[in-house]
Amino acid sequence: MKYYSRHFVKPGDLNPAQRLFGGQLLAWIDEEAAIFAGCQMGTAMVVTKLMSEIDFVSSAFCGDVLEFGFEVVDIGRSSITVRCEVRKKQTRELILQVERIVFVALDSEGKPTSHNKAGMTLEEARLATEREQRLAS
Amino acid sequence: MKYYSRHFVKPGDLNPAQRLFGGQLLAWIDEEAAIFAGCQMGTAMVVTKLMSEIDFVSSAFCGDVLEFGFEVVDIGRSSITVRCEVRKKQTRELILQVERIVFVALDSEGKPTSHNKAGMTLEEARLATEREQRLAS
Amino acid sequence: MKYYSRHFVKPGDLNPAQRLFGGQLLAWIDEEAAIFAGCQMGTAMVVTKLMSEIDFVSSAFCGDVLEFGFEVVDIGRSSITVRCEVRKKQTRELILQVERIVFVALDSEGKPTSHNKAGMTLEEARLATEREQRLAS
Amino acid sequence: MKYYSRHFVKPGDLNPAQRLFGGQLLAWIDEEAAIFAGCQMGTAMVVTKLMSEIDFVSSAFCGDVLEFGFEVVDIGRSSITVRCEVRKKQTRELILQVERIVFVALDSEGKPTSHNKAGMTLEEARLATEREQRLAS
Amino acid sequence: MKYYSRHFVKPGDLNPAQRLFGGQLLAWIDEEAAIFAGCQMGTAMVVTKLMSEIDFVSSAFCGDVLEFGFEVVDIGRSSITVRCEVRKKQTRELILQVERIVFVALDSEGKPTSHNKAGMTLEEARLATEREQRLAS
Amino acid sequence: MKYYSRHFVKPGDLNPAQRLFGGQLLAWIDEEAAIFAGCQMGTAMVVTKLMSEIDFVSSAFCGDVLEFGFEVVDIGRSSITVRCEVRKKQTRELILQVERIVFVALDSEGKPTSHNKAGMTLEEARLATEREQRLAS
Repeated sequence: MKYYSRHFVKPGDLNPAQRLFGGQLLAWIDEEAAIFAGCQMGTAMVVTKLMSEIDFVSSAFCGDVLEFGFEVVDIGRSSITVRCEVRKKQTRELILQVERIVFVALDSEGKPTSHNKAGMTLEEARLATEREQRLAS
Repeated sequence: MKYYSRHFVKPGDLNPAQRLFGGQLLAWIDEEAAIFAGCQMGTAMVVTKLMSEIDFVSSAFCGDVLEFGFEVVDIGRSSITVRCEVRKKQTRELILQVERIVFVALDSEGKPTSHNKAGMTLEEARLATEREQRLAS
Repeated sequence: MKYYSRHFVKPGDLNPAQRLFGGQLLAWIDEEAAIFAGCQMGTAMVVTKLMSEIDFVSSAFCGDVLEFGFEVVDIGRSSITVRCEVRKKQTRELILQVERIVFVALDSEGKPTSHNKAGMTLEEARLATEREQRLAS
Repeated sequence: MKYYSRHFVKPGDLNPAQRLFGGQLLAWIDEEAAIFAGCQMGTAMVVTKLMSEIDFVSSAFCGDVLEFGFEVVDIGRSSITVRCEVRKKQTRELILQVERIVFVALDSEGKPTSHNKAGMTLEEARLATEREQRLAS
Repeated sequence: MKYYSRHFVKPGDLNPAQRLFGGQLLAWIDEEAAIFAGCQMGTAMVVTKLMSEIDFVSSAFCGDVLEFGFEVVDIGRSSITVRCEVRKKQTRELILQVERIVFVALDSEGKPTSHNKAGMTLEEARLATEREQRLAS
Repeated sequence: MKYYSRHFVKPGDLNPAQRLFGGQLLAWIDEEAAIFAGCQMGTAMVVTKLMSEIDFVSSAFCGDVLEFGFEVVDIGRSSITVRCEVRKKQTRELILQVERIVFVALDSEGKPTSHNKAGMTLEEARLATEREQRLAS
């Protein structure tokens, strides 16, 4: 699992029980996962199609730094499925995991469309992503 | 299914594909469901524990009014499980459904605690809620 | 008075006096009232035209659940006037009331336009709304 | 009427009719008026008590700069009443006016309390404010 | 230095160290400076081009009222440079200063374009602004 | 330069010129840099002390994915200085760079305090961070 982004829990992110508001966490996950999926598929025109069961393993508190890890677990013609883990950066304590988040690539008319990694195996996609990251560093 | 709250999709809620940003929708669901669950359990000290699979059936667009329906589907000693449906108010088109969202009631030290509906059957809880709503109108 | 929506007072909604920030409450009222009025008039193209005197009867605090009640009190050709009450869900304590909020329906060029309930009496509009709600449940 | 603050209408501030969302405008007014009233009374512990009728004279659009003018119109022992005008900076076109917004000063226990300008006439308060502004420049 | 706008530090604006979050302060500065520059140049189509070194002199806390002062320090054909000071309104304590923030005026195609004060000396621009402000009061 | 976080430019992040609002970009930078610096220093109690000149090299638009790179460039007893680059993930086009952002670690009373990397050379700090990252993967 590779970690791509981090968020700081600030006072404005809390619920009345002084824990990170669950809806804020879900919004961060969806945004980070959409960025990850969009970068894999080579387009910003993506929509969330499905999230599998979300287990809120433990709570986050003000001052915690959360990091968001993603990996591709399935590749369709117009979709990609990613697995997500969120943990506290300082202690590696698991906050939440989602086995499958499915994103669909859309064309300019909003119809599902083929994407950059369509037809690749997971291994081919992983190699392609590593190549892109090497070029970028 | 009874509908409790509505949200308006505004330009600031969109993703780059000009659809309602999935993370915003999830944040609304978690907040509305937490209010529903908190009202059932008689406390604002609630945290989200689990969401079952979320199927984004269709997209929402700028100007749509979404309504959020909830019902209790399971009652534990310190938790309550709710089912959620989101649909477009104008057309009743289904946007999203979640079979189970589990909320836990916390005491002032943040430990799980018994709640107002603990030990009730679903039918007893439904009658208790109806009684509360009659008193409130 | 029928209650349509609820909001949770979270730490990020407070003013420096640790009460619900008045501007946040007004933003919630305007949005909920616009949804109510837009659903009555059958369009999302609505603008707020007038709010009568707003009496902030008592303060709300972190953890309070507020519920927002509306009813139609006047019907014009291109406008509708709604009455609003906000109260704490848990205690029914009144937070705020506004006797008249006037919304205007706009056509696609931004000009005032006739709407779904134009020409109805209050009683006819109430029956029409009940019919819509029966169909929706 | 003296103008104290300005806001820029950005895409994220619009309603589905592509006009400034009324609730955003009300939130700005309440915040700016609370700052003005708090500076007059010499405390940040203020709450909004009443707003008189609000007339939305004309709409604001993306790119407009709004400026917010305030003046004191009444002084109580624990309260102050301000008049508000909002207009487009570029054209001076009036957007909205509120004749009376009443703010109450609170002590550290949240009870109404006497403030810096209590017992002054409007003229005395105006001179005191001018003196403070001269010192500040 | 003339002060044009104010902001209230609310609980939702704090960082985990219970001080005003630096990013929120920077967002306020950029927005207020853009409004100031846009009003000088006579257009809302402005983008930030450069900020010189920013010295966070002291921290702001919940309840503080900050005021934002600006003055024009340089005038180009398609740009304007402003100096900024932020201080606590109550105590005049300096929070932050930025010697130069450069804004560029854009035409409808997003290309740099000449503006209202292009070709003026600082003195001429100051007189023009004073004239505009006299007309506006 | 290693890239740690990404942000998606959404419609609600734009300024009236339909470009990424500069203040939003600065808020993202400050937050991401504070997370980076806080992780280096081993504490969430950090405040921004200084940002060197910020050059907005090119604009970002709706749908762009920005990535935020950081590296430590100086280490003090209670502070750490980081360099920042923001670029478009898709094209690697540079959006903005800041040579030095200085963060200070605070103790529980808000006084500057020694931190995890105090007294290390840049090389020692880099090795310590690599070690932490190896442990974390």
